[in-house]
Amino acid sequence: MRYLITFSYDGSKYNGYQKQLDVNTVQTELEKALTTLNDNNFVSVVASGRTDACVHALNQKAHFDLSINITEDKLKMALNSLLPKYIYVKDAKVVDQDFHARFSTKTKEYMYKINIGEYNPIEVDYVYQYNKNLDIDKMKEAIKLLEGTHNFKSFASADDVRDNYERTIFKTNIELDNNIVTISFVGNGFLRYMVRNMVGTLIEIGEGKRLPSDINRILEKEDRKEAGKTAPGCGLYLKEVTYK
Amino acid sequence: MRYLITFSYDGSKYNGYQKQLDVNTVQTELEKALTTLNDNNFVSVVASGRTDACVHALNQKAHFDLSINITEDKLKMALNSLLPKYIYVKDAKVVDQDFHARFSTKTKEYMYKINIGEYNPIEVDYVYQYNKNLDIDKMKEAIKLLEGTHNFKSFASADDVRDNYERTIFKTNIELDNNIVTISFVGNGFLRYMVRNMVGTLIEIGEGKRLPSDINRILEKEDRKEAGKTAPGCGLYLKEVTYK
Repeated sequence: MRYLITFSYDGSKYNGYQKQLDVNTVQTELEKALTTLNDNNFVSVVASGRTDACVHALNQKAHFDLSINITEDKLKMALNSLLPKYIYVKDAKVVDQDFHARFSTKTKEYMYKINIGEYNPIEVDYVYQYNKNLDIDKMKEAIKLLEGTHNFKSFASADDVRDNYERTIFKTNIELDNNIVTISFVGNGFLRYMVRNMVGTLIEIGEGKRLPSDINRILEKEDRKEAGKTAPGCGLYLKEVTYK
Repeated sequence: MRYLITFSYDGSKYNGYQKQLDVNTVQTELEKALTTLNDNNFVSVVASGRTDACVHALNQKAHFDLSINITEDKLKMALNSLLPKYIYVKDAKVVDQDFHARFSTKTKEYMYKINIGEYNPIEVDYVYQYNKNLDIDKMKEAIKLLEGTHNFKSFASADDVRDNYERTIFKTNIELDNNIVTISFVGNGFLRYMVRNMVGTLIEIGEGKRLPSDINRILEKEDRKEAGKTAPGCGLYLKEVTYK
């Protein structure tokens, strides 16, 4: 049977989502717990996509196949009893055998948090601490220019070589509440580092180092050097994933 | 010169405030940074009181004497550049030679956070995850009975032997917002585990296992066995310390 799970994790406790040798990752923990549950027959987990070191997830999705028989509720409970406290399965359900957690995605939503107030050591792994004045109106003007279908090569990782850099951003939002700036993007998919590079560029616009209209020029140039710095991983959250 | 600092820390990263051999504590880090700054002459730090493992501080206070000359602003900056990212000095000021961070306290405020909503792995070290219905009105009725001057022996650590268990609680509060219950206490001082034992008892009242009026009986008995369980350290925050 194929299952789809929705799960959340504290990215600051892991070296990213994707399995790697000799370091602790979310995928490693999931596969270990599932393999134990599956009578020690190895279970391979396919997530909607990887998240980088320190990046958090509120509703990440993944599919896998089990050879044992287990109900959805029992699977959720058993997994949560086996997983470390920094990973939590919110939901488990049976899906069709042709469902694919990565290839069937329709939209993804990412959220990025910046603390522009006083440094807070209790939130250091959960927001980007950036105690500077940011012009939120200018950032709102700029982020609108990222909406729509564009070639996002300028915002991709410089060593990300591929044929197609085109993505569609359906919706964006910027809010300021209690000195926390929350920036969100809903799109059909995001290139590696794309959200953090867009956020880094928006910060430079908020600081007045660039103009909102620079976004158009950056997109046109299709060159990573045109965009701003990569914002740190710890402020980023994978918020939602939807399927076709 | 004697200095008073206000500082915050993420208690989940330390084995409590107080210096101990072979484990990492907040006091150890502060004394290490201050000794470096003080031309390697050892600096002893006196805080308003200890906090236990995992307990956080938003505005902890401590005094110490330095043999070097340094302005308040430079001291703050220098300390923050030497301290780990989980400890932050918010303010430093020169105080009289007879000021004492522990003996001169007037009030202390503690805050405790409980998540009664779905388990959240991102906040596991910052709130007590307790996914049960709590009757907030009953808890509010009960907490009022803790206000005033009482012998708090029933709420002290069982192995805390001392002459005087009398303390005064000036003000209490309970709020429910977004599934987070925040309980706060302002008093002239608190015995070890006293806040966590009061919170543990209030939770049992909120669950209906005890009546609000039980508080009076527990106080009268002066026996730790009468009160409820000790709530975990990670939900507790030292919020404010004031001086005479």
